[in-house]
Amino acid sequence: MVTDVLNSGDTSWVLISTIMVLLMSIPGIIFFYGGLAKKKNVLNTMFLTLIAFSIVSIIWIVYGYQFAFGPDINGLIGSPLNILLNGIGIDDLHGTIPTIVFIAFQLTFAGITASLVSGAVVGRIKFSAWIIFISLWVTVVYVPITHWVWGGGWLQQIGVIDFAGGTVVEICSGLSALAVAILVGKRRDQTLLPHNLGYSVLGAGFLWFGWMGFNGGSALAANGLAAMALLTSNTAAAVGLITWMIIDTIHEGKPTVLGALSGAVSALVAITPAAGFVDIGGGIVIGIGASIFSYYAVTILKPKLGYDDSFDVFGMHGVSGIWGTIATGIFAVAAIGGVDGFLHGNFSQLAVQVIATIATIIYAFTVTFIVAKVIDLVVGLRVKESVEVEGLDTHVHEETGYRL
Amino acid sequence: MVTDVLNSGDTSWVLISTIMVLLMSIPGIIFFYGGLAKKKNVLNTMFLTLIAFSIVSIIWIVYGYQFAFGPDINGLIGSPLNILLNGIGIDDLHGTIPTIVFIAFQLTFAGITASLVSGAVVGRIKFSAWIIFISLWVTVVYVPITHWVWGGGWLQQIGVIDFAGGTVVEICSGLSALAVAILVGKRRDQTLLPHNLGYSVLGAGFLWFGWMGFNGGSALAANGLAAMALLTSNTAAAVGLITWMIIDTIHEGKPTVLGALSGAVSALVAITPAAGFVDIGGGIVIGIGASIFSYYAVTILKPKLGYDDSFDVFGMHGVSGIWGTIATGIFAVAAIGGVDGFLHGNFSQLAVQVIATIATIIYAFTVTFIVAKVIDLVVGLRVKESVEVEGLDTHVHEETGYRL
Amino acid sequence: MVTDVLNSGDTSWVLISTIMVLLMSIPGIIFFYGGLAKKKNVLNTMFLTLIAFSIVSIIWIVYGYQFAFGPDINGLIGSPLNILLNGIGIDDLHGTIPTIVFIAFQLTFAGITASLVSGAVVGRIKFSAWIIFISLWVTVVYVPITHWVWGGGWLQQIGVIDFAGGTVVEICSGLSALAVAILVGKRRDQTLLPHNLGYSVLGAGFLWFGWMGFNGGSALAANGLAAMALLTSNTAAAVGLITWMIIDTIHEGKPTVLGALSGAVSALVAITPAAGFVDIGGGIVIGIGASIFSYYAVTILKPKLGYDDSFDVFGMHGVSGIWGTIATGIFAVAAIGGVDGFLHGNFSQLAVQVIATIATIIYAFTVTFIVAKVIDLVVGLRVKESVEVEGLDTHVHEETGYRL
Repeated sequence: MVTDVLNSGDTSWVLISTIMVLLMSIPGIIFFYGGLAKKKNVLNTMFLTLIAFSIVSIIWIVYGYQFAFGPDINGLIGSPLNILLNGIGIDDLHGTIPTIVFIAFQLTFAGITASLVSGAVVGRIKFSAWIIFISLWVTVVYVPITHWVWGGGWLQQIGVIDFAGGTVVEICSGLSALAVAILVGKRRDQTLLPHNLGYSVLGAGFLWFGWMGFNGGSALAANGLAAMALLTSNTAAAVGLITWMIIDTIHEGKPTVLGALSGAVSALVAITPAAGFVDIGGGIVIGIGASIFSYYAVTILKPKLGYDDSFDVFGMHGVSGIWGTIATGIFAVAAIGGVDGFLHGNFSQLAVQVIATIATIIYAFTVTFIVAKVIDLVVGLRVKESVEVEGLDTHVHEETGYRL
Repeated sequence: MVTDVLNSGDTSWVLISTIMVLLMSIPGIIFFYGGLAKKKNVLNTMFLTLIAFSIVSIIWIVYGYQFAFGPDINGLIGSPLNILLNGIGIDDLHGTIPTIVFIAFQLTFAGITASLVSGAVVGRIKFSAWIIFISLWVTVVYVPITHWVWGGGWLQQIGVIDFAGGTVVEICSGLSALAVAILVGKRRDQTLLPHNLGYSVLGAGFLWFGWMGFNGGSALAANGLAAMALLTSNTAAAVGLITWMIIDTIHEGKPTVLGALSGAVSALVAITPAAGFVDIGGGIVIGIGASIFSYYAVTILKPKLGYDDSFDVFGMHGVSGIWGTIATGIFAVAAIGGVDGFLHGNFSQLAVQVIATIATIIYAFTVTFIVAKVIDLVVGLRVKESVEVEGLDTHVHEETGYRL
Repeated sequence: MVTDVLNSGDTSWVLISTIMVLLMSIPGIIFFYGGLAKKKNVLNTMFLTLIAFSIVSIIWIVYGYQFAFGPDINGLIGSPLNILLNGIGIDDLHGTIPTIVFIAFQLTFAGITASLVSGAVVGRIKFSAWIIFISLWVTVVYVPITHWVWGGGWLQQIGVIDFAGGTVVEICSGLSALAVAILVGKRRDQTLLPHNLGYSVLGAGFLWFGWMGFNGGSALAANGLAAMALLTSNTAAAVGLITWMIIDTIHEGKPTVLGALSGAVSALVAITPAAGFVDIGGGIVIGIGASIFSYYAVTILKPKLGYDDSFDVFGMHGVSGIWGTIATGIFAVAAIGGVDGFLHGNFSQLAVQVIATIATIIYAFTVTFIVAKVIDLVVGLRVKESVEVEGLDTHVHEETGYRL
């Protein structure tokens, strides 16, 4: 409900300062993923996010924003009246805030969602294929789902609540990652041996910090609501970190830094749709659930199903995104965000959340699969075996991450 | 006087954006300490802060805030009326700002103070003991001192001025660090051979940046005052950096990056209680003094007394915190923050500052010592010798920081 | 036109939060340069920025601000009425914002410009010479140019438009870097073999993020204008990244991460003077041009002319600063920032921009050359050959960047 909330109050300055904060999520993804990568692929891994954010930044301005937020056409897509922001003046308003501010705010969501997908296919995807993939994917997957949920499309019409992107960002990136990971295929060496966990701690720190921008920023109408979203998000992250650490210690005998970060990120994913709708108690339950479900997905489901989602984009963003979107329909409290969930007697909200979840899963997975399949047939998705074995940094970029 | 200042003006949005900025102090501590650690302990060092911040985040919501800021009981502690934020609505006010905003702002102070303590005991403290320690320490050490100084307790009643935490954050963390360092005992290898000084530069950069959030943010009432706090803090940091560098060059023959960072951090510590009460000239004197006193503590006092405070939490935060809290009583100017200090004829303010300093020193050291002693007797504070020698990352977490 | 814009509206809080964001540019420079350095010089490289920012922070308060923004004397320099901020109260106004806020905001521009210069001379400049150089340079080069363009001096009087520092920051740092690089002379080993490209990615991320603070922050008067400046800057950076990558791929056969970062930074440089004056289309052309011109300067002009500007401060900041300042006079649109450029029939604006560009080039280069020459004659600019060969970290600071 970002759009609804944005429309009340003179909030543009806060939004601008929030945009500056949440842009740190891009280095967040770069270093979270970069640290998890093998040394031989660190630069290529970082480059996938750099180029994805750059491509999406341009597409969003040229036509992406228009198809997502233009006047609704049959609940499916926006009407692109202002290609290249043509005709939008600096004093035009979207609700009560400047249209330009809203476009910039939404751009960051699109750029981050695209970047997240890369974690599933690092170490083996062709650089040229990734560039083509992101250009098509943001157009035919991200933009329509955004329109459905926040741009006046059919899911918003039936009343879905998604505070800061449980469907649009999390389920969408997670399922898209799964689809493209299946098509790209398994790495020859599937061990996860992070080459620099300090980088991943740094990245997770930026993500935690930037997420306050996403979740706090999405509550722009009311002073208390924004702080509540921020506090609920921080609490969920802390609870998720500790939950994963406990499970790790019980199952594996040791608490790991990587597990702790995974718990925090999973909980931040799950609290994303809920942050401005649930109370602290709800946030705690959502954080605990996120770590349990994502731990299960990463350690049991993935080996069983056999796909190779390198950095568990599906296991963390997909699974906890699904949990969070549904949990929002369970734990929402009218006193916080104006909508009650199942626990407060409103079953229909839960039903709507389930419908939105299923629709996003099916659409993101299917359309991403088709897009990636076409690219695979035309230019090929995967690098040669020798390139994969010797490392993409040397072969694709003729660079090396370290001279130590 | 954070609470007093917060109560005037419609400042909640600024506070929220400030919270987002000062959260960067957590990665700040993680990388400042992480870089100073030996390579074999880098992940464990980072994990101590991650888990401390997570535990404190939860305790603060469950009961910490209530005991610190609930209605005063005999000047000693707050009355916990709203456990788990029960009964606090998103529109409730603390003074003129939403209570939820104030809770979130204060949470960051608690989390950072707890994290600071870890620097004294890295490389040898048991992970389980640390978890128990932080849970107890924040409850019986941090929360009462916060109540005394900012929550309406006895120190606030006698008129102490502490802009952003000279007592609550700095003296408290420094003396607590000293107590637990003495109990944990010396490392077998006490050389300070930072494994990655670039990380420490990064951490110090985040701290410098985040400190602008603490010190600038604590001045929420007046436009000019916030900027003055920020400018005074930045000037003190610059002066501290240069002062330490000069002493280093005179004593050791070479300016070092680690010394420069130590000077900047010491000065930021000392300016913390003073930022909104002194003018630029006062800030410069405080910055110079901080580097001189902390340099002395680190290079002369520590070897003489023989305790092993690994990263000089006492030497920097304790000593410069004491200096800053007292100096605030000397250099305060009514034209800046409404209170005059000794230099402007108000001796009683200096006396109050000295009382607050002594009370915080005694309470933080003694109670932390008791808490740590009990934990030592029950579960033990220290890892086995073989674990310390071979490194905590491998033994405690089965992880390694780098695969380069 | 920062000053003009700042004077309208109650914008001080936004400015303060912007200052906190743009301070991240300092770690930005530290890590961008630190990563490009050879391993043996990483700490010295970082230290050059740390000390430059510290020195400038103090000089700015003591007299720098006064000479830059004091009452104009013959268009050349400000009149220093308030040395050490004497007589400036926390409620004093500069236009409609507190003077203290304005001083802090401008301090960050001065500190960053000085730090940028270091990239030309790393790995061979004497530490003591650098300290003297920066102290003199900020006084006789940076302060006068700032007065001319933003402080009421002759360039502002003839109507130059420079949104966030195309002349003051970019041309000034680029030409100063060229002058001092020529005097310091070539490194014995001029290969650019970055020792840690991850650091450079991190630094570029901070710069990208912090630049939103500079360019977004410089538009404080109007909601839409700030967002437009931010959106135009982000778009230009994305376009610049992709442009350089394409040129790289055509010329060298491979896209490189270092090239992509260079493209983004060059475009951010070029959009700096233009951000609040041009529309998105103009921003795209400026971003493309920046990468083309800076690519040419770095790969063709530099080898041909034979100077050794280690990290291409002239090639990126100088050349793209010149392009951006002139392009602002070409593409400015009255509907955005109130001024039309050549393309909209206002030839005289382009003429003014060219005059400002030439004046800044001549003044920055000549006076920096004289300052550096005097230092070279008195204390010497360059370290001994053995120090250069073995590395400055060990010799100058007795420290080592890594123990891995």
